Amino acid sequence: MAPQTPRLVVPIDVKKRPWEQRLPLHNRWHPHIPPVADVTEGEIFRVEMVDWTGGRIGDNNSAADVKTVDLTVTHYLSGPLRVLDAKGVAAKPGDLLAVEICNLGPLPGDEWGFTATFDRENGGGFLTDHFPSATKAIWYFEGIYAYSPHIPGVRFPGLTHPGIVGTAPSPELLSIWNEREKKLAEDGAGSLTLCEVLHQRPLASLPTAKNCLLGLIEEGTPEWERIANEAARTIPGRENGGNCDIKNLSRGSKVYLPVFVDGANLSTGDMHFSQGDGEVSFCGAIEMSGFLELKCEILRGGMREYLTPMGPTQLHVNPIFEIGPMEPRFSEWLVFEGISVDEAGRQHYLDATVAYKRAVLNAIDYLSKFGYSKEQVYLLLSCCPCEGRISGIVDSPNAVATLAIPIAIFDQDIRPKSGKVPAGPRIVKRTPDVLKCTYDGNLPITPNPGAEKKST
Amino acid sequence: MAPQTPRLVVPIDVKKRPWEQRLPLHNRWHPHIPPVADVTEGEIFRVEMVDWTGGRIGDNNSAADVKTVDLTVTHYLSGPLRVLDAKGVAAKPGDLLAVEICNLGPLPGDEWGFTATFDRENGGGFLTDHFPSATKAIWYFEGIYAYSPHIPGVRFPGLTHPGIVGTAPSPELLSIWNEREKKLAEDGAGSLTLCEVLHQRPLASLPTAKNCLLGLIEEGTPEWERIANEAARTIPGRENGGNCDIKNLSRGSKVYLPVFVDGANLSTGDMHFSQGDGEVSFCGAIEMSGFLELKCEILRGGMREYLTPMGPTQLHVNPIFEIGPMEPRFSEWLVFEGISVDEAGRQHYLDATVAYKRAVLNAIDYLSKFGYSKEQVYLLLSCCPCEGRISGIVDSPNAVATLAIPIAIFDQDIRPKSGKVPAGPRIVKRTPDVLKCTYDGNLPITPNPGAEKKST
Amino acid sequence: MAPQTPRLVVPIDVKKRPWEQRLPLHNRWHPHIPPVADVTEGEIFRVEMVDWTGGRIGDNNSAADVKTVDLTVTHYLSGPLRVLDAKGVAAKPGDLLAVEICNLGPLPGDEWGFTATFDRENGGGFLTDHFPSATKAIWYFEGIYAYSPHIPGVRFPGLTHPGIVGTAPSPELLSIWNEREKKLAEDGAGSLTLCEVLHQRPLASLPTAKNCLLGLIEEGTPEWERIANEAARTIPGRENGGNCDIKNLSRGSKVYLPVFVDGANLSTGDMHFSQGDGEVSFCGAIEMSGFLELKCEILRGGMREYLTPMGPTQLHVNPIFEIGPMEPRFSEWLVFEGISVDEAGRQHYLDATVAYKRAVLNAIDYLSKFGYSKEQVYLLLSCCPCEGRISGIVDSPNAVATLAIPIAIFDQDIRPKSGKVPAGPRIVKRTPDVLKCTYDGNLPITPNPGAEKKST
Amino acid sequence: MAPQTPRLVVPIDVKKRPWEQRLPLHNRWHPHIPPVADVTEGEIFRVEMVDWTGGRIGDNNSAADVKTVDLTVTHYLSGPLRVLDAKGVAAKPGDLLAVEICNLGPLPGDEWGFTATFDRENGGGFLTDHFPSATKAIWYFEGIYAYSPHIPGVRFPGLTHPGIVGTAPSPELLSIWNEREKKLAEDGAGSLTLCEVLHQRPLASLPTAKNCLLGLIEEGTPEWERIANEAARTIPGRENGGNCDIKNLSRGSKVYLPVFVDGANLSTGDMHFSQGDGEVSFCGAIEMSGFLELKCEILRGGMREYLTPMGPTQLHVNPIFEIGPMEPRFSEWLVFEGISVDEAGRQHYLDATVAYKRAVLNAIDYLSKFGYSKEQVYLLLSCCPCEGRISGIVDSPNAVATLAIPIAIFDQDIRPKSGKVPAGPRIVKRTPDVLKCTYDGNLPITPNPGAEKKST
Repeated sequence: MAPQTPRLVVPIDVKKRPWEQRLPLHNRWHPHIPPVADVTEGEIFRVEMVDWTGGRIGDNNSAADVKTVDLTVTHYLSGPLRVLDAKGVAAKPGDLLAVEICNLGPLPGDEWGFTATFDRENGGGFLTDHFPSATKAIWYFEGIYAYSPHIPGVRFPGLTHPGIVGTAPSPELLSIWNEREKKLAEDGAGSLTLCEVLHQRPLASLPTAKNCLLGLIEEGTPEWERIANEAARTIPGRENGGNCDIKNLSRGSKVYLPVFVDGANLSTGDMHFSQGDGEVSFCGAIEMSGFLELKCEILRGGMREYLTPMGPTQLHVNPIFEIGPMEPRFSEWLVFEGISVDEAGRQHYLDATVAYKRAVLNAIDYLSKFGYSKEQVYLLLSCCPCEGRISGIVDSPNAVATLAIPIAIFDQDIRPKSGKVPAGPRIVKRTPDVLKCTYDGNLPITPNPGAEKKST
Repeated sequence: MAPQTPRLVVPIDVKKRPWEQRLPLHNRWHPHIPPVADVTEGEIFRVEMVDWTGGRIGDNNSAADVKTVDLTVTHYLSGPLRVLDAKGVAAKPGDLLAVEICNLGPLPGDEWGFTATFDRENGGGFLTDHFPSATKAIWYFEGIYAYSPHIPGVRFPGLTHPGIVGTAPSPELLSIWNEREKKLAEDGAGSLTLCEVLHQRPLASLPTAKNCLLGLIEEGTPEWERIANEAARTIPGRENGGNCDIKNLSRGSKVYLPVFVDGANLSTGDMHFSQGDGEVSFCGAIEMSGFLELKCEILRGGMREYLTPMGPTQLHVNPIFEIGPMEPRFSEWLVFEGISVDEAGRQHYLDATVAYKRAVLNAIDYLSKFGYSKEQVYLLLSCCPCEGRISGIVDSPNAVATLAIPIAIFDQDIRPKSGKVPAGPRIVKRTPDVLKCTYDGNLPITPNPGAEKKST
Repeated sequence: MAPQTPRLVVPIDVKKRPWEQRLPLHNRWHPHIPPVADVTEGEIFRVEMVDWTGGRIGDNNSAADVKTVDLTVTHYLSGPLRVLDAKGVAAKPGDLLAVEICNLGPLPGDEWGFTATFDRENGGGFLTDHFPSATKAIWYFEGIYAYSPHIPGVRFPGLTHPGIVGTAPSPELLSIWNEREKKLAEDGAGSLTLCEVLHQRPLASLPTAKNCLLGLIEEGTPEWERIANEAARTIPGRENGGNCDIKNLSRGSKVYLPVFVDGANLSTGDMHFSQGDGEVSFCGAIEMSGFLELKCEILRGGMREYLTPMGPTQLHVNPIFEIGPMEPRFSEWLVFEGISVDEAGRQHYLDATVAYKRAVLNAIDYLSKFGYSKEQVYLLLSCCPCEGRISGIVDSPNAVATLAIPIAIFDQDIRPKSGKVPAGPRIVKRTPDVLKCTYDGNLPITPNPGAEKKST
Repeated sequence: MAPQTPRLVVPIDVKKRPWEQRLPLHNRWHPHIPPVADVTEGEIFRVEMVDWTGGRIGDNNSAADVKTVDLTVTHYLSGPLRVLDAKGVAAKPGDLLAVEICNLGPLPGDEWGFTATFDRENGGGFLTDHFPSATKAIWYFEGIYAYSPHIPGVRFPGLTHPGIVGTAPSPELLSIWNEREKKLAEDGAGSLTLCEVLHQRPLASLPTAKNCLLGLIEEGTPEWERIANEAARTIPGRENGGNCDIKNLSRGSKVYLPVFVDGANLSTGDMHFSQGDGEVSFCGAIEMSGFLELKCEILRGGMREYLTPMGPTQLHVNPIFEIGPMEPRFSEWLVFEGISVDEAGRQHYLDATVAYKRAVLNAIDYLSKFGYSKEQVYLLLSCCPCEGRISGIVDSPNAVATLAIPIAIFDQDIRPKSGKVPAGPRIVKRTPDVLKCTYDGNLPITPNPGAEKKST
């Protein structure tokens, strides 16, 4: 036996653009995007990743870049990686792929991140009806800690994790995705209420060749055209894992992913220095470039043994996770509650989404009394290690959701006090630097990367 | 100064029925239910409570009593208590009432509880379409631990808490509740999807005089009739707290409740030895009788200072909570994910309720491979200290919800293993005692307590 | 199966003196003190206990009672209890007795405790050379929390536990104890250094009939005389458990005690609402009366199977413990270090006791800068949930010990700050109530309980 | 503002020997060892370090290298670093230097470590009388986890930390050290007992020029001779911090070090992937090369303000620490107790060192029943995240120490069980690879690095 230095499988140069990386990236899910490298069961390997935008968001005081970012570029993923067992036999459909996150972090030399809200007309977010403008906060890292010049008075250890880890879908599964999401986009009636409450459109992001990056598939070829027009977008989490945004998926965690294609074709990306449950502002974690050090194990037949596929094609499954032991300990939490009555007073039926929206709004209102603007709190709750719980889901008609915020991340005591306690600290106004987008309509729109790519 | 022995304010005799208790109980929310006692800011007082059914569910192997329980009796509450400050001045509307839970537990001599699912035709539950029959599991307590003869192989420390803690609504607030819930019950179209997914009816439980218990208001009087026909049911959590079922509201926690009426009129009930986030089986905690030892503080004007009322009447607020420091520590969790695609494969739009339903179903399927029936797991997930999280609520169209289960509560290792690991423990069949209702239609229906009361 | 209400096996009336209790108490270890009751494997039973002094210390502002307390009365224990298996067969020597602490707490109606230092001439303490006078602080309980009028500005949840849990020694083991402690008392040369450092005498408390209470053995009989003159004092922890003062032995913990006599003869006492590691002030926990709810299991032959007896008689063993899952969570700790160089600058060789003494002194000096007297801090560190660690025990000549204090127990931030931070909070002088003994030499000495007993 | 990539201040090439590194290392404490670099308050800087032996211990199956290692080489430290404030003014004597550990870990490409016991004749260890031979276990790292081919069946997350962090002593302080340790070495009578119990000699490691490495001071010069003969050895922790081996000093921790010389002259080294409290086997952590990313703050005058110097020179102080929030969570612990009666049955007086020795021996005996050799357990307890507590230090004559071991690090259940539970797992014999030294006397003794250095 000998010590294993993680083998660098996917290197990233953050000074280069996504389509210029040595191993090509991809930003869609499709069974025919070829693996860029092989990894073997038991070995520790390192995958580096650009931030989800591939470097389009700058470390500066303007949200203009967020306002105009083209969401068809999301998310630039590293991989796919073909997973082999010790004898060189690839993972097979029906297997379960156990992926242990041995270590992870920001890329050396790139120790910063951003949290943002999209403009209502360009992606929106959970509270886009309340916060329709693009905003942005920059975070700097000091080892495990993050702080922001835009949200002074908070500093917290990051529960760093990948937003996206997933396997490639089979053609059948891809087709299921495309059909069900298309149906929703075309005929969203059943979800009318939530759609109104969230004020968001479109309901789903359907396949588009625009800004499509398909790894080793050369752009412009017929194969590229075919794949680009049917490949699934990376925004939602799905049966293959994907953008599940589980904030506790940090050091020492393990993901059990179903395998749908030969080799499993594992992809990762969208690194988060920290995120609150729900990632409410949409671009809501502390988004960064980063690296993962992973170890895989193939559980032969494990998908059938451990998961219970549903539906006619037996493909409706979800990954399983084991949370790692290495997490920040917080002992004191202030908890905000929301019920499924919306801001207009309308009663919804056991709707946890509405309830969570209210809990987040309640927390924003409350914390804005401590010297913050509501925009600052919205961004903060999106990225700090707060916990979003479904507390009650059966007491009709009200779902009850709660948002628990660790008190220790603030440099002031945010608990309610009786009038006898001097109100001093609460009136100290924070000095929020520019957060809101100052977009005047004249900023250059970020060009199509494909276009740029060609001109390069 | 001198030590304070908690003053017993509301005593309970579990051998007596709810309407026979020394201080009368109530099972509705209404501003005109008079306080049964006064408590003073700073004093430690003890409130005892019957279980939510008032003793209708027996410690036995049949779910017949669950099948036929009349939900109009829910929940028997202790109180209301009028809260005074040290000078004898009552809490006022606009104040915030801080209620610290100094201690709590089962009632001595009554150290057991039950977890159940209602029959689909009588209340149902979160998964009533999958589990339409009434079922029941009995739990026995050994100090902080609970175990069940009906779900062998698990034992866990309880995160004991009151399911219900709340203040009385003002007439205006009550009227808002009744109107919005009536509107939902009559015209549920907006929520059509969830309603279909959950297969539950009615959508809301509207006021009814049936089985109404109103404390000091004598039954049959015109005042009783008036109040009984407009008092709000206790099933949902609302602006006053109420049935919020927050499982971490245990020893050392603090609740900040808005005050809507003079004296606050604090009521508590529905003690839970333990509960999982969501309380999915509806009658889903380990339901028990119990006691609370409380200490109140009045934050004068705190409702206006700390909460941000919404809507025209400025009454749409929610309580705030501080979680206590005394909780069981678990280090290892197995996490199940669900996305907002329902079991039929239909795509829903950012619906956290659907996503959580899928997460729970995934967990049930998985754990049923370890020797349990699905009914057993459903009950277990409803009452063990599992955590239900809203992980992603912005990546349209899929909400992502997760259910994290502490591995240590099982006497076997429930993690996925590769085939090389002997499958031994997994095939050891648990020997579930009778759980399912054997109701043959001939069991006597529990009579109306009012009727009984009269005949007593 | 049926729920178990803990069976009250040893009742205590705190208004009565130790020798007036219904089931007689004892304050010595001896194989021939007869059991006062039987308990059966698997049953949950309740044992109530007086505080270690049997009520001699009052809830008042004078330490005079501490100054003159006669240590020959310590500790009043409840029991012994004979432990039988389900078939009625008693535990046997060589078995291991697993005792689970299902629940515990203060006695209802007696929710207070005290922390004290003895006078240098009457027991002393770990720092008696620095704090030679008797002092006392009273603590009041609010559920899980304790606060003291004598040490304002702190409040913490108690990690409540029994100071003493033990089995009866066999005659052989008793004889080993008496011999080795007598040898130390007579010829302490080997320990000269520590003895000097700690300034304490006597080195050991040898058997004495004075104030001896032997349960069912009638005082004055020849048997009483024999036992009283050879029974071991309860002050030190020994092979049978005894006064081990392990502060984490709280709800849900389990103790594995060796069995030396038929029936095991389990005794408990010396309840602590809270204690710091080391219990440095000697009378140093928050001492109180209280109750335990216990469940026993007999591991037949387990002493030989799991423990490794040493020495010729194979009796040198120590209990094993499992810490319970229900503990207060603290996330931030300030840690003080000490090395084995004493206050005079003298170098000791890998002496963890000297190192811990220095760590405690360092903490006292530091915290006294925040508005406390050193006496207050000494008492606080003795009883709050601080952790005393042996950090390094091999780097000769210095042992390194650390004392970690949870920051959250203070109502001010006790961390070091740069000069730029306003020094305000640090100069706010606490207003310590009377703590120090004002003993003028004329207070009546507490009479011998035996004498009182006779006159009763 | 801009993101800070940690500035690499001290680079290490593990393929080179300690005296060949670009910035010279040192292995002694002395005020006149010149700084190798400057760091500024607020900046994040990176210090790399060799393992304490500078690469003398190999990744192999023989303990021969441990048996013959020359302890006069210990410990190779990186630094000293001169600390300046933002205006370029150096830290001054009397200041307090706050050093935050932002991040840390093994050196990339060197992901392994070792735990060892020294031979009785060459350093020994805490239990050298029981384990007189040199032994060694190799550990490999998988991200946060370590496992060993020599101790199968355990795997645990490391609480990684620097064993040594310290400032340079002033001439006065150095002289105090040398005098008090020399006195001990020459006249150890006071500590006779411990000395006998621990069977270790010499009592202290006094200054010696042998194998001395003094950074920028050129070997052979008169200055080198002077310093080498009076510089303090690095083995014990002292007033300047040094080898304090505090295992919780991990990511996010903060050390407050007293400043004794201009610039503070901060040195670090002796990285530990993991360590148990006490580091009992002496070479007892998982020793490795590694890196620290640090941030300093100078608290002007803080030494006088926060610490309380003792003794005539006012230099007897100890550092203060804040434990970081990022630690592995363990929920279940098995705890072993020891009292201050030694293995021969001799009674010691409140001796925590003897008590801890007994606790460790008890744990070794117990765990050796689960398929391990005692040597394996000794090494394991030295390096796994176990906690060593001083539980009772006042109940004369017995100090009580406890050793708590997290149950989750084992792949079997190590709790005591009744005979009814199949004893199966306990008799599965582990297959320990070669651990013990097979030294045949013919191995070459590692030459003096100074000599080597010259010949290079």
